[in-house]
Amino acid sequence: MTGFVSFVGSGPGDPELLTLKAVDRLKRADAVLFDDLSSGPILSHAGAGADLVGVGKRAGRPSPKQDHVSQLLVDYAQDGAHVVRLKSGDGGIFGRLEEELVACRAAGIPYEIIPGVPSACAAAAAAGIPLTRRLTARRVQFITGHDVAGQLPEDMNLAALADPEATTVVFMGKRTFGRLAAMLVEHGLPGDTDVLFAEGVSTPDQTLTRTTISALVETLKGELATSPALILYGPLAEDYDA
Amino acid sequence: MTGFVSFVGSGPGDPELLTLKAVDRLKRADAVLFDDLSSGPILSHAGAGADLVGVGKRAGRPSPKQDHVSQLLVDYAQDGAHVVRLKSGDGGIFGRLEEELVACRAAGIPYEIIPGVPSACAAAAAAGIPLTRRLTARRVQFITGHDVAGQLPEDMNLAALADPEATTVVFMGKRTFGRLAAMLVEHGLPGDTDVLFAEGVSTPDQTLTRTTISALVETLKGELATSPALILYGPLAEDYDA
Repeated sequence: MTGFVSFVGSGPGDPELLTLKAVDRLKRADAVLFDDLSSGPILSHAGAGADLVGVGKRAGRPSPKQDHVSQLLVDYAQDGAHVVRLKSGDGGIFGRLEEELVACRAAGIPYEIIPGVPSACAAAAAAGIPLTRRLTARRVQFITGHDVAGQLPEDMNLAALADPEATTVVFMGKRTFGRLAAMLVEHGLPGDTDVLFAEGVSTPDQTLTRTTISALVETLKGELATSPALILYGPLAEDYDA
Repeated sequence: MTGFVSFVGSGPGDPELLTLKAVDRLKRADAVLFDDLSSGPILSHAGAGADLVGVGKRAGRPSPKQDHVSQLLVDYAQDGAHVVRLKSGDGGIFGRLEEELVACRAAGIPYEIIPGVPSACAAAAAAGIPLTRRLTARRVQFITGHDVAGQLPEDMNLAALADPEATTVVFMGKRTFGRLAAMLVEHGLPGDTDVLFAEGVSTPDQTLTRTTISALVETLKGELATSPALILYGPLAEDYDA
């Protein structure tokens, strides 16, 4: 008997930002494969008998290979398990979802995808920043600062990224931000463009820092990039709560 | 005694895609101000005594003015109510959130913002499409096809929008897609670029259509643009379920 895989976006980390559907699937899971950011209190919704398996790939630490995660997923499902594959935020946004979908397809395992609250939305909400603004930010874009080799991706579209009329959110971009910032400024984006630097979004350790592109580059120099962070820049709404 | 406003992203429409925090705030609300897409079964979480007030602005129909909505919010809160302002998807994405935040600030009313599942994430999940892809779509962007006057916004960044290596989601873009598509093709994006046309996302009326930019332009000719839709285009994952 073949099992079933629910790919579930767990939201940014606060267990109260799980969807009702995510909670339902956790309760019914035989096995939960979770990333680093979808661990902790989120897992308390799983039943007592469920296998809880951490498959995180935290920046800067050795971690299970993607192939290994996909194989584990397939193995559980082929044993007949209802597997919940928890992915932080929304799994479709920098969640390496596709590789695991392909593995399920190849093995003939049925699945569903349940969307979640992206961490970018949670960071913006916590800081009181609308990601879009009626006249000044009619485009919002999400990019990664970290390709499969851990580097800033090649061939970035700088006409898109240095646009002063878009809100940009950089995922996993702490370590490579200096290089990105230099390219943005070279392409005309002012170094004093507003930035929100968000760490530990929606967790008890959350910190939100209002700064600028140039100032953040200085702050991040020499910092160890082990904790996850989001960098938002663009025509951000003023800091009402300052 | 001043009340409190919870700006709550209600997700795309499926009541199971509400977050636990959204449900909690609905249960405790004295008044719920809701948009068209955050109505129906979502409202069943509100208590029996809560005022339920529709303030929708459905495309093509006359609707309450933004100022009127903000004033209503302030009036309820100044009467001491805990108001839930439900916005479909995530309120920070094309939700006209900022105008209402500013009104609360001006009136000295405390508030919180609770993020939600964006409709774009739900549409992609339903169609099995990751919004980002490891090598081919390392950028995802959301734009609106509908400015305050109901027109395609001026001065769109076509270098960003005609990029074949980004996934683009057009919100409220059904009526203006013909014009946008012409500009995209003029800027080099092939007319046979893959499209997902999604209507009624996550509701019982959901339809998901795989098509291309050129074919969608033909389909939409002469159609009345009353129902809400999302248009995704770019290097979309293949249609595994076809």
